[in-house]
Amino acid sequence: MNNISYRNVNLNKGYWKDKQLLNENVTINSVYDRFYDTGRIEAFKFEYKEGDDKRPHFFWDSDIAKWIEGAAYILNNKSDKELENKIDYIVDLIEKNQLDDGYFNIYFTVVEPGKRFTNRDCHELYCAGHLMEAAVAYFEATGKDKFLKCMEKYAECIEREFMINKTAKFITPGHEEIELALVKMYRCTNNRKYLDMAKFFIDNRGVGSDVEDFIKCFNEKYAQNHLPVREQKTAEGHAVRACYLYSGMCDVAYETKDQELYAACKEIFNDIVNKKMYITGGLGSSHIGESFTMAYDLPNETAYCETCASISMIFFANRMMRFDNNSIYADIIERELYNGALAGVSLDGKSFFYENPLEINLNNHIHNTSTKDKDRLPITQRLEVFDCSCCPPNITRLLASLGDYIYSEDNEVIYINQFIDSKLEKDNKKVIIETNYPQDGLVKIRKENVDTIAIRIPSWCNHFEINSEYELKNGYAYISSNKEIVINFEMKPLLIESNSLVRNNANKVAIQYGPFVYCIESVDNCDNLYQLYIDKNIQYELEFDKFFNANVLKFKGYKKVTSDKLYDFVSNVYEDYIIKAIPYAGYANRGESNMLVWLNYKG
Amino acid sequence: MNNISYRNVNLNKGYWKDKQLLNENVTINSVYDRFYDTGRIEAFKFEYKEGDDKRPHFFWDSDIAKWIEGAAYILNNKSDKELENKIDYIVDLIEKNQLDDGYFNIYFTVVEPGKRFTNRDCHELYCAGHLMEAAVAYFEATGKDKFLKCMEKYAECIEREFMINKTAKFITPGHEEIELALVKMYRCTNNRKYLDMAKFFIDNRGVGSDVEDFIKCFNEKYAQNHLPVREQKTAEGHAVRACYLYSGMCDVAYETKDQELYAACKEIFNDIVNKKMYITGGLGSSHIGESFTMAYDLPNETAYCETCASISMIFFANRMMRFDNNSIYADIIERELYNGALAGVSLDGKSFFYENPLEINLNNHIHNTSTKDKDRLPITQRLEVFDCSCCPPNITRLLASLGDYIYSEDNEVIYINQFIDSKLEKDNKKVIIETNYPQDGLVKIRKENVDTIAIRIPSWCNHFEINSEYELKNGYAYISSNKEIVINFEMKPLLIESNSLVRNNANKVAIQYGPFVYCIESVDNCDNLYQLYIDKNIQYELEFDKFFNANVLKFKGYKKVTSDKLYDFVSNVYEDYIIKAIPYAGYANRGESNMLVWLNYKG
Repeated sequence: MNNISYRNVNLNKGYWKDKQLLNENVTINSVYDRFYDTGRIEAFKFEYKEGDDKRPHFFWDSDIAKWIEGAAYILNNKSDKELENKIDYIVDLIEKNQLDDGYFNIYFTVVEPGKRFTNRDCHELYCAGHLMEAAVAYFEATGKDKFLKCMEKYAECIEREFMINKTAKFITPGHEEIELALVKMYRCTNNRKYLDMAKFFIDNRGVGSDVEDFIKCFNEKYAQNHLPVREQKTAEGHAVRACYLYSGMCDVAYETKDQELYAACKEIFNDIVNKKMYITGGLGSSHIGESFTMAYDLPNETAYCETCASISMIFFANRMMRFDNNSIYADIIERELYNGALAGVSLDGKSFFYENPLEINLNNHIHNTSTKDKDRLPITQRLEVFDCSCCPPNITRLLASLGDYIYSEDNEVIYINQFIDSKLEKDNKKVIIETNYPQDGLVKIRKENVDTIAIRIPSWCNHFEINSEYELKNGYAYISSNKEIVINFEMKPLLIESNSLVRNNANKVAIQYGPFVYCIESVDNCDNLYQLYIDKNIQYELEFDKFFNANVLKFKGYKKVTSDKLYDFVSNVYEDYIIKAIPYAGYANRGESNMLVWLNYKG
Repeated sequence: MNNISYRNVNLNKGYWKDKQLLNENVTINSVYDRFYDTGRIEAFKFEYKEGDDKRPHFFWDSDIAKWIEGAAYILNNKSDKELENKIDYIVDLIEKNQLDDGYFNIYFTVVEPGKRFTNRDCHELYCAGHLMEAAVAYFEATGKDKFLKCMEKYAECIEREFMINKTAKFITPGHEEIELALVKMYRCTNNRKYLDMAKFFIDNRGVGSDVEDFIKCFNEKYAQNHLPVREQKTAEGHAVRACYLYSGMCDVAYETKDQELYAACKEIFNDIVNKKMYITGGLGSSHIGESFTMAYDLPNETAYCETCASISMIFFANRMMRFDNNSIYADIIERELYNGALAGVSLDGKSFFYENPLEINLNNHIHNTSTKDKDRLPITQRLEVFDCSCCPPNITRLLASLGDYIYSEDNEVIYINQFIDSKLEKDNKKVIIETNYPQDGLVKIRKENVDTIAIRIPSWCNHFEINSEYELKNGYAYISSNKEIVINFEMKPLLIESNSLVRNNANKVAIQYGPFVYCIESVDNCDNLYQLYIDKNIQYELEFDKFFNANVLKFKGYKKVTSDKLYDFVSNVYEDYIIKAIPYAGYANRGESNMLVWLNYKG
């Protein structure tokens, strides 16, 4: 199966088109402004001197690179001279300040010159990777190749220092990213050297001297150094690093037909999906190391679930899809898009979560009442910018490139992976999707010069109707009829349980409606959400809510009644209570509030 | 109501007599040996020089003092020359090394001389208090007054430095204890000065310069400095410090008829019992500050529940009883004795828990798989000695003085507070309790020269039968009949729920049978205890277990069956499972195991 690029796809209207418009009109500018305020833009002037304010951080290059990449995707669909000028301003500075030998890094030029490629965890290759992705996107959007040329020159510098002269003090990057970026460079330029470089960084991970711990408090698993990548079978360590690596592994496996490498990707993908992923798609159970932990270890309140990790899982799943015409990959992408990734940005498009827990108890932030320090818990309101501000521009580039995830193809079959109102045009082929999804499950598909359409049947859907003959295979309905296809996925609230090995969700259920996982907030319910119980016999009302641009649900549930005593004989007394649930991604948009995804189950 | 002293009471046989014998024959010697090994005994020679091994810690005096106190209670009931010699050896060293002005403290004489009474958190007055309690106990047991004289001299030194010359650099102790000890000195010697001193330390807490934070990371609540004690209404800060203070407050309120002080004690007692106490009686929800936290904040796995805190709550409750002929106080003492306090010592009497959590998941000790550090969780096996080894000798003195908690009196009424096979002899009054409690609920009581017996009806008991007329009042059954009283408390497993404001116990129940709270361990059940569910319709089998010297229970329950998927539609499929439960206090006596008190409730 081949992914179909955003370049062949236009969103027409609906939920995601609205998100894209907000992204183009608000988010891209807001992120730019905050990056400007914090000195990230002007840092490209390379004028920092010791003692100055706004000392560049070693990951600032990547923040701006991701912003450029997002802006480039926007420019692909519409002209925006102001936006383009902003990019050109930065690109000119990159060209001007790139060293003669091709090296480009703000921090290691103006803050710690002479320390180039000496510290494995200082994100130089990570920054390089993001700059390359941005350069490719900008070239594809505008045809301008100045930035791409700079990055080709930088890639040569990296090849020289890591692969030829071996002057770098480490072999593989502490934070993966360059691997998948080099494959993008390869696909854009057809220069096979970049693919070889990607393969080099992948092949050398977890072997030789790089296996040593490179950060005092972490171990080899933190940066996926514990084994040679082909021997890795489980997802370990920093979740974003991990999924960027796995994405790069997929790319190299695909381009080099490396079955062993693909087999490792598949084992790891299954390990994540079957044992280490929150129902929201969130990845990373611990803030310590921002990491995967153990199988089935999914605490809700302290969940890290970095926004970038959900985005990186979209990248990973989208690459896995190429090897296997199975709907699981698009299912995961849907889960991430509507939940884990989307929660990262506020409904007004201006502020962001880095961490996306599945439970908030405001009280617990003052748990240790007799100490001065607060407990370490995720923040409860989104912010416009962070010191480590990787997530905001990652959201921006994701939303601007949504077209990447809707369609794919395999010979004469066009696969419909996401139900987004859009038009695909590639060569003489044309597919149009019309839908209000996720508001309802009705999807209409028209095609021209396409033999077969394969429609993903979402894993949450128990019942659907199609107006044509179809063949069901690995989660896709294959339809060869020429008439307009009308498919209707029955949407109703579903009670979802965790595998019983997930300790934190025992005796609890989550609510899903369509692709959205729901949560409850105190602002709609009572203060202590753990007093509420959901009944096994679902009785609900549905209501479209403009604020969330989605349906909110009202369930007949219960509130536990207890005596004033701290402990008492079990009473089994509950009072009726209408529980209002909203899509998880919309939490924390109406002030601070307690929040809960997994509800007590009265089974 | 007056407490009746252990000096008037002898245990005859049964559960607690066995515990006392183990304490006399094993624990007292084992604790001594470990204290000897670690240098605590020889430290009393005052021969430490800088650079030597086994540098005395500033709380070592108190460890040995509590050990002496326990040994003294043992000597009260039986002659043991070897034990007495060990005490005399230490007492001689105390006399020898006490400074001329009465000051006695190992650390501030040999390690930091010249720093006497300069650091409020260095436990000098706490050590002094424990030495005073020990001196009183040893005098009462043997009539030997050398130790008591030393402590009277030390008390004068303290009076001089704190109350007369005010040369001490602080006003009240950072760790309370001396308050209640001074009242013991007063009652033993009839010297009212000691009561005045106790009142001084209580009256001055939370006022003046002592309000300032004295430890960098804690706030005023940590050592109960946040308000003058009479204005305190909630239990705050370090749980052991707190309950030692509250005990001292009770003592002073009782001796000085201070209604305002008693009112504060009552409010605080209710705050603990109604909002901050684990079902095991455990106190202190956080290891940070070993502290009370917020109302209803009772996490199970990270519960601190220091053994000493349960013991200190026994002291507090036993003192509260004097003001109020209500069974709640003896109920709490029962809860602590059979659960929170008893869990602190192993079944073989040799090793100890400092922390007593209500849940163990061994896996969670390696939760952060990509870091070198382990998570901070309570240890899972008891140890023979700790660096801070306050709990082992506290257990020893508690078990040796159990006679303190069985009876109390008010005019012509003798109150039966605990159902322990024993004999009370005081003046011409005599009461004999015969019972196998807690193995069953049958209790026989004979009396001589006693008008009325008041028998506590345990709060867990829904049904009981008495062979005599009785009047029920505030939880006691008053009986004036002269024949042998036979009372039978119906014992059956009870499902207990928490107040619905306790987040961690929502949709869960605990099992209680008689005074014991039960837990389940993996060694008797499956690995993942949170897969098990208890049914609302209790079906059980009872079996006496010699190892635990108590009944173990087998319940008809369920194990949740789920698919291999991480998330799936709720299934409501369970398989039958026999859940074996043991008394909580016996947990962790058969190797490392997962453990759970609060079980999923299938209601």
